[in-house]
Amino acid sequence: MTGGNKDFHGVFPYLVSPVDGKGKVKTRVLSTLCRHLIRSGVHGLAPLGSTGEFAYLGADQRRRVVDVVIEAAGGKVPVVPGVASTTIADARAQTRDYERMGADGILAILEAYFPVDDEGVYQYFKAIADATSLPVVLYTNPSFQRSDLSLPVIERLSRVPNIRYIKDASSNTGRLLSIINRVEGRMQVFAASAHIPTAVMLIGGVGWMAGPACLVPEQSVALYELCRQGQWDKAMALQRQLWGINQAFAKYNLAACIKGGLALQGFDVGDPLPPQAPLSEAGRADVARMLQSLGALPEQR
Amino acid sequence: MTGGNKDFHGVFPYLVSPVDGKGKVKTRVLSTLCRHLIRSGVHGLAPLGSTGEFAYLGADQRRRVVDVVIEAAGGKVPVVPGVASTTIADARAQTRDYERMGADGILAILEAYFPVDDEGVYQYFKAIADATSLPVVLYTNPSFQRSDLSLPVIERLSRVPNIRYIKDASSNTGRLLSIINRVEGRMQVFAASAHIPTAVMLIGGVGWMAGPACLVPEQSVALYELCRQGQWDKAMALQRQLWGINQAFAKYNLAACIKGGLALQGFDVGDPLPPQAPLSEAGRADVARMLQSLGALPEQR
Amino acid sequence: MTGGNKDFHGVFPYLVSPVDGKGKVKTRVLSTLCRHLIRSGVHGLAPLGSTGEFAYLGADQRRRVVDVVIEAAGGKVPVVPGVASTTIADARAQTRDYERMGADGILAILEAYFPVDDEGVYQYFKAIADATSLPVVLYTNPSFQRSDLSLPVIERLSRVPNIRYIKDASSNTGRLLSIINRVEGRMQVFAASAHIPTAVMLIGGVGWMAGPACLVPEQSVALYELCRQGQWDKAMALQRQLWGINQAFAKYNLAACIKGGLALQGFDVGDPLPPQAPLSEAGRADVARMLQSLGALPEQR
Amino acid sequence: MTGGNKDFHGVFPYLVSPVDGKGKVKTRVLSTLCRHLIRSGVHGLAPLGSTGEFAYLGADQRRRVVDVVIEAAGGKVPVVPGVASTTIADARAQTRDYERMGADGILAILEAYFPVDDEGVYQYFKAIADATSLPVVLYTNPSFQRSDLSLPVIERLSRVPNIRYIKDASSNTGRLLSIINRVEGRMQVFAASAHIPTAVMLIGGVGWMAGPACLVPEQSVALYELCRQGQWDKAMALQRQLWGINQAFAKYNLAACIKGGLALQGFDVGDPLPPQAPLSEAGRADVARMLQSLGALPEQR
Repeated sequence: MTGGNKDFHGVFPYLVSPVDGKGKVKTRVLSTLCRHLIRSGVHGLAPLGSTGEFAYLGADQRRRVVDVVIEAAGGKVPVVPGVASTTIADARAQTRDYERMGADGILAILEAYFPVDDEGVYQYFKAIADATSLPVVLYTNPSFQRSDLSLPVIERLSRVPNIRYIKDASSNTGRLLSIINRVEGRMQVFAASAHIPTAVMLIGGVGWMAGPACLVPEQSVALYELCRQGQWDKAMALQRQLWGINQAFAKYNLAACIKGGLALQGFDVGDPLPPQAPLSEAGRADVARMLQSLGALPEQR
Repeated sequence: MTGGNKDFHGVFPYLVSPVDGKGKVKTRVLSTLCRHLIRSGVHGLAPLGSTGEFAYLGADQRRRVVDVVIEAAGGKVPVVPGVASTTIADARAQTRDYERMGADGILAILEAYFPVDDEGVYQYFKAIADATSLPVVLYTNPSFQRSDLSLPVIERLSRVPNIRYIKDASSNTGRLLSIINRVEGRMQVFAASAHIPTAVMLIGGVGWMAGPACLVPEQSVALYELCRQGQWDKAMALQRQLWGINQAFAKYNLAACIKGGLALQGFDVGDPLPPQAPLSEAGRADVARMLQSLGALPEQR
Repeated sequence: MTGGNKDFHGVFPYLVSPVDGKGKVKTRVLSTLCRHLIRSGVHGLAPLGSTGEFAYLGADQRRRVVDVVIEAAGGKVPVVPGVASTTIADARAQTRDYERMGADGILAILEAYFPVDDEGVYQYFKAIADATSLPVVLYTNPSFQRSDLSLPVIERLSRVPNIRYIKDASSNTGRLLSIINRVEGRMQVFAASAHIPTAVMLIGGVGWMAGPACLVPEQSVALYELCRQGQWDKAMALQRQLWGINQAFAKYNLAACIKGGLALQGFDVGDPLPPQAPLSEAGRADVARMLQSLGALPEQR
Repeated sequence: MTGGNKDFHGVFPYLVSPVDGKGKVKTRVLSTLCRHLIRSGVHGLAPLGSTGEFAYLGADQRRRVVDVVIEAAGGKVPVVPGVASTTIADARAQTRDYERMGADGILAILEAYFPVDDEGVYQYFKAIADATSLPVVLYTNPSFQRSDLSLPVIERLSRVPNIRYIKDASSNTGRLLSIINRVEGRMQVFAASAHIPTAVMLIGGVGWMAGPACLVPEQSVALYELCRQGQWDKAMALQRQLWGINQAFAKYNLAACIKGGLALQGFDVGDPLPPQAPLSEAGRADVARMLQSLGALPEQR
């Protein structure tokens, strides 16, 4: 039974996309990683987010990634792949494709070269929602994207029935409260790694979708549980320890960082696609230190 | 007895600077406002912040504002005026002046025309701290200032004994947690109106310094108390109502907004100094609606 | 005989990419436009630049566009298609493909999602040059791209033998002189529509690659000739008239503008791909006025 | 006889403001520099521009600088001091002051903390023009100022009779042609150091106001003469040599650079006001090399 008909909540790691030197998706390590995360208690899997290098993969590579993740998940947790494009036509095609393949939801991302006005932004996300019966998660990331979702557009989109979530990757936590106040329950909010998850849970969020959860899934799930139980002091104590990892990932290329950290943990996921640089030696040491302090690295490393 | 030898905490409204058409500080309304805020329970007063139009006042006007506020406070709550300059020499002179006049702390602001490197930023704030025996609050506002305080500089400055607080006016709440983790208790954090105060209290803040508290002082103090008592659910219920006012103030010119709102409440504080525009008709209606819904406007308006 | 073994110079219009509602390239109108431009005297054709919506087309659509343009050019003028990607692997494949199809040069464009460091930028362009025997034109457009070519990287790339040109689409004309001084003749400079072509010719440029030349090809060629003959006063008189069109194109979405202007001239090239908006009514009137004043619109419109 | 009743044109060096450790203006070296520049043929003097650190000086220091420059000029060339403020009231007062002191024109600069709308921008510059009978030069510098002059505002201001010039310090040379086309002769255009002076002269400019002219006044005047005579090829040959100096000044803090260069030439103008850093050792060597290659440094240095 898939998670498609249930509400999304909790910790959704943004998965990396392991690709070999010839451009082939490394399916075995991706499967292993997915099963490891599920065993660690994560509530869902999100392939093809920023961390998943959607912007660096061809259509075939993207389909392969989604396919492998859905199979590895085996219906135990919902799989919510990213659909990203500059055009409505292509976004629609990807959406239908992923639904057919068994996805449980769609993470909708707008790419742009020229600026897009509010009406264009609305039409893009509306078209994705119309192309599927799955729940849609809006994704907004002002650091890397050329167009942002304004509050009026978010409100308009919140009235489309199957647009039910938003994941905001700005670092502006106040904006999340503005969204929550404005959509009046029609849409639920997920945090991203630039927000403090505990703070977002306090103000009414339902979980977080973030790359760092790939590396510290158990600790992330424990934090989520503390928040759910309203044990805010204990949550903050754990949060303070975990925050360093989010800081590290803001400092380095996201994909390089998570791939580098996973390699330290024994997952042979390789480096980000060139010309992106792999995690530097200094970065590797930095991440290793952090993971060790969180008990997320095997002893003898 | 002044609050100068006690820890700063709680709600510090950023005061407006009422100036008449001839450039004279309107001392009576400023005094009245200060006494009203103290009666409403605020924990301190902060003249000459952004909302106080420090960037628009001459040296004489600024001294006059500080003078009136210190007298009106009468030692009941600490007064922490802003010192802002592009040069070390001028900042030092202002600092000594305000200490002599009876201030309880210094809010230190760096203005710049050309970019300043980390060493210059450090020297500037260090010089202010060295010029006074009062506690110093670092102020950082990336939206309006040309130079920002980096984490390494903040850490270095946290080791200067009388630099004891920081007020960060970015909208990046995660940055506050990074600061808290990094300064290890040597410095306390105040929120600004761009952050959700309740979230900042949760992560370890000690209060907030913000313009909106001029308009809703009682509600702000109530929110602070709920946070202090760890009544997070009740705090968030009140926070959700109050947030609209912070949103409004992000939308309009800060000084115009607070001055406009105070005028609606019967404080004849005038408009911001030209060529700044006064609050528009639409803005006035917007603010009026918000204040009414919060019980912060007299009935018959 | 192709222009591939000759130096590139003069006016290269950035072609639009006409695509119908089903995503099919409208080959007939594209061919007609190419032949019209060649008859008007342009010195080369540049498909798949910004104006050509490279960021909105799939791999198949892009190949089709290049194919049609090469065939329509028939060796009369060089064809220099854009190669744009986020990865080295894909850029290399496109480059080889277009060379095989008969292109005379490659316009190399770097797309990015995460920032790329100087070494990554160098590796990307170097890989394109290594993949082909054709001359390569570097393309830099800080308004729409996430990574810019720094002067040190440009100098390094100027030492790669077949990287022979750069087309800078910043609006910073001084930067072009800095480049010219730095590359010491190893690379020639083309202007873009954000620069004043006459000014760029004065400082040592060899021509311009720009969308507006699609609409005023004869006038552009006349301007180029005046510059070549050193008739600077006459050139500036013509330049002043033509500049309005560059201003208009800075004001609107580039592709929408050129497509809208071509439609007014009778070329049925359609609108830009959704969610990009077509040229607005006001924009259409604006462009019509401008073209009329330049004698670039049929009488009875 | 002063230049006040003549048209401004040619080379106006932006003067530095030499201030000693106690905040006193070093009047002797400032006088010496002014006389040296006049002997070198410059067409006017511009104290209190960006290079003149207007943003770092108090009202008294600024008056002193203007006073010394007017006296040193002795009516031989026009003196056009900068008036910069955040408020209309203060700008008006400065303007009247400088006119009374004998200035020949006013360089009008808008400082801002909060953003100013077009109407506010218009009112500010209009108020300066109304406060004086002198010709006014609009100054716009998007790199360092928070508010920019839009084309519609520039057009409106060009209709104020004594607003007769604009000095644009963006690096966007095309913008200058847009301005020239739009103001139809009601306002003349000066270049700044971010533009190529020769290119600006070609498109219709009347000269340049820039810090580097302090260091290479004779060469600058020679370049201006070549441009005036339409000897564009010779002008460009000289321009190419001189451009390196503009590049250097874009790289370092403007005031530090010009002060550092003047010190190398034997003018004891000191360093920029702290916390601005003095020119670094590397910068000093860089500037020395450049000045030597232009014959602008005494032999045995």
